[in-house]
Amino acid sequence: MALIVQKYGGTSVGSIERIEAVAERVIKHRQQGDEVVVVLSAMSGETNRLLGLAKALDPNASEAEKDVLVSTGEQVTIALLSIALQKRGCDAISMTGDQVRMHTDDSHGKARITDIDSQHMQSHLNDGKVVVVAGFQGRSENNRITTLGRGGSDTTAVAIAAALKADECQIYTDVDGVYTTDPRVEPKAKRLASITFEEMLEMASLGAKVLQIRAVEFAGKYNVPLRVLSSFEDGEGTLISYEGNKMESPVISGIAFSRDEASLTVLGVPDKPAVAAQILAPIGEANIDVDMIIQNSMGDGTADFTFTVKREDFSRANRLLEQIADNLGAREVQGKQELAKVSIVGVGMMNHPGVAKTMFETFGTEGINMQLISTSEIKVSVIIDEKYLELSVRALHAAFGLEQ
Amino acid sequence: MALIVQKYGGTSVGSIERIEAVAERVIKHRQQGDEVVVVLSAMSGETNRLLGLAKALDPNASEAEKDVLVSTGEQVTIALLSIALQKRGCDAISMTGDQVRMHTDDSHGKARITDIDSQHMQSHLNDGKVVVVAGFQGRSENNRITTLGRGGSDTTAVAIAAALKADECQIYTDVDGVYTTDPRVEPKAKRLASITFEEMLEMASLGAKVLQIRAVEFAGKYNVPLRVLSSFEDGEGTLISYEGNKMESPVISGIAFSRDEASLTVLGVPDKPAVAAQILAPIGEANIDVDMIIQNSMGDGTADFTFTVKREDFSRANRLLEQIADNLGAREVQGKQELAKVSIVGVGMMNHPGVAKTMFETFGTEGINMQLISTSEIKVSVIIDEKYLELSVRALHAAFGLEQ
Repeated sequence: MALIVQKYGGTSVGSIERIEAVAERVIKHRQQGDEVVVVLSAMSGETNRLLGLAKALDPNASEAEKDVLVSTGEQVTIALLSIALQKRGCDAISMTGDQVRMHTDDSHGKARITDIDSQHMQSHLNDGKVVVVAGFQGRSENNRITTLGRGGSDTTAVAIAAALKADECQIYTDVDGVYTTDPRVEPKAKRLASITFEEMLEMASLGAKVLQIRAVEFAGKYNVPLRVLSSFEDGEGTLISYEGNKMESPVISGIAFSRDEASLTVLGVPDKPAVAAQILAPIGEANIDVDMIIQNSMGDGTADFTFTVKREDFSRANRLLEQIADNLGAREVQGKQELAKVSIVGVGMMNHPGVAKTMFETFGTEGINMQLISTSEIKVSVIIDEKYLELSVRALHAAFGLEQ
Repeated sequence: MALIVQKYGGTSVGSIERIEAVAERVIKHRQQGDEVVVVLSAMSGETNRLLGLAKALDPNASEAEKDVLVSTGEQVTIALLSIALQKRGCDAISMTGDQVRMHTDDSHGKARITDIDSQHMQSHLNDGKVVVVAGFQGRSENNRITTLGRGGSDTTAVAIAAALKADECQIYTDVDGVYTTDPRVEPKAKRLASITFEEMLEMASLGAKVLQIRAVEFAGKYNVPLRVLSSFEDGEGTLISYEGNKMESPVISGIAFSRDEASLTVLGVPDKPAVAAQILAPIGEANIDVDMIIQNSMGDGTADFTFTVKREDFSRANRLLEQIADNLGAREVQGKQELAKVSIVGVGMMNHPGVAKTMFETFGTEGINMQLISTSEIKVSVIIDEKYLELSVRALHAAFGLEQ
């Protein structure tokens, strides 16, 4: 008998029929003898509908009251699933974030979990009940309703799995697992049977949208085995754990990518260590995320300084940088939009020093110019012209034999 | 400076525009220096929409989970009104039934309030905030969400006014007060400036739908002055208190009526005291409410026994009564539908013994047959053919000079 936490997203509970399908799936696990905690999102579209009402009253509505508002979305789905389970003779009870004692800080709209008092859930499980928990929400020390931010239901599920020491946390979604790359770009992409937390983190932060980064971090921190599954078809999905695919140890596990990159370069800044901070501090203060950073010494006492940002932040960053360049007496600011980032990810590359070489050769063969390169222990990322994105992904997928 | 509890029903918060109008009204009171607690219902239609979802899953869905479901309706409106108030520079905070510690028993769907821990509300009031409370909901000892039953928001408002020792509990609705009778039947009906709790209770239980009976009882019990007002136009409304209109002391205050009455008669039952219980016990067990009861001794050892029920319960009551009559060896069961009840209500009648006479003479003049009569200290009710209802109401309204 295993204790399983299952999380279903908004599309999985988007209609009466889908809620009934979730109930059937939960009951199948109960019949196998598992104890089940279910974490739910709001019906798809509901959170946006509610936020629309708030916005109609005040585009700058307080985060605290928006939390009161949108947390109703999950409260509706937990009641409905409990009703569907009970209807099928399965004992079930719904619990709000407050009722499961999901304690958070008071950063409304993006609260962080501080503690879960799991005894209430545990006592219902001991009574043989399926516990149906509202995802995404908690309560602050002031006894106010908080939300964990968009997609926070994944984090709720992992946190509950950690608190209950569950055997597995299953994230049901509209894809049937984690793929070697996006099948919409490379139809030969294969579902991975398993992957490590580190790889999943890199994949997620590099653009693979299957799981919330925060949930993966949380699962890694508390060593909760995570499984990504389809809520619409049966299958094994992808297991994310510390073992991952280390045993099989392919060179790389997947290829992640993100569009919407942009780069900015200041030419002719003083070639001193302090200059990076002088350039990047104002950018950070403006809440613009900087990704890759390169400082190129020219050998004449000046350097060229390049960094990448999301394309939506490009104009703001560019304006700021013109001013910074003026202050530094730099020669010129250059910007490039329509860039993309392609990354290879794999714990296997730690033992295979030739990985980067294979990657760069692939770009060379295809005649694609690599504009920026950044590496970590388990990934190599390259910035290229966006128009070469699909070609790059497919070429790398083939070069590393991922279709097998 | 007064402490006022204001309650707004579903139509008063049925759209963004109406919520904004409520915000303006609340702020007007704040600007007069009053402390304000606002109690809200769900947007009109929302509770039924949610119950429709539950019913689609299971027509016999558990009351506990339906409470979790429908209590979201008020949570949405309290957040929205708080946002509208804050937008206008008025400090406000929303509170759910759980957060105001509205303790109830665990009769889900029709819970009764056991206790309110008002210190949380009081501390927000002390901070200068408008407190916006979700009506209709509470929490049980098991820490589950309960609801007080339909229309329970009036009761919430009165209970909070009692707990906070508020100066007045204002119920905003779609009529501008309590009338001498329904203006749709008698256009000359007048708004009453004031009325006593006892009169309001009689008016409500006799068919005037302005206020929940439970809320009036509650207000009377804790001596909370209640005021019924329109949320759409300004005005003084009707004040309900122990003083009421005793000072003015008109003979009667109003004329209440209800359609959909039906009567059942068993002819020739044994003329013994026990027979009433033998007849009514099975009716009560079937959850059929009996209103008027008359036992007419025939002088030959038998009696005719008549009682009235709501017309919707007529067929069920009739079937039961046929069986009861068989068991009692009664002669016959007769039933009448399409009856109505007309009542005159007024504390003044205690000092005016001629009131019933005036009423009966009015029916005589109009040629209307009174089929059953029942009296209490402050009301006289008469059952008549439904087709004479409007005529009776207008004739009584004139006979008692209520149009003045």
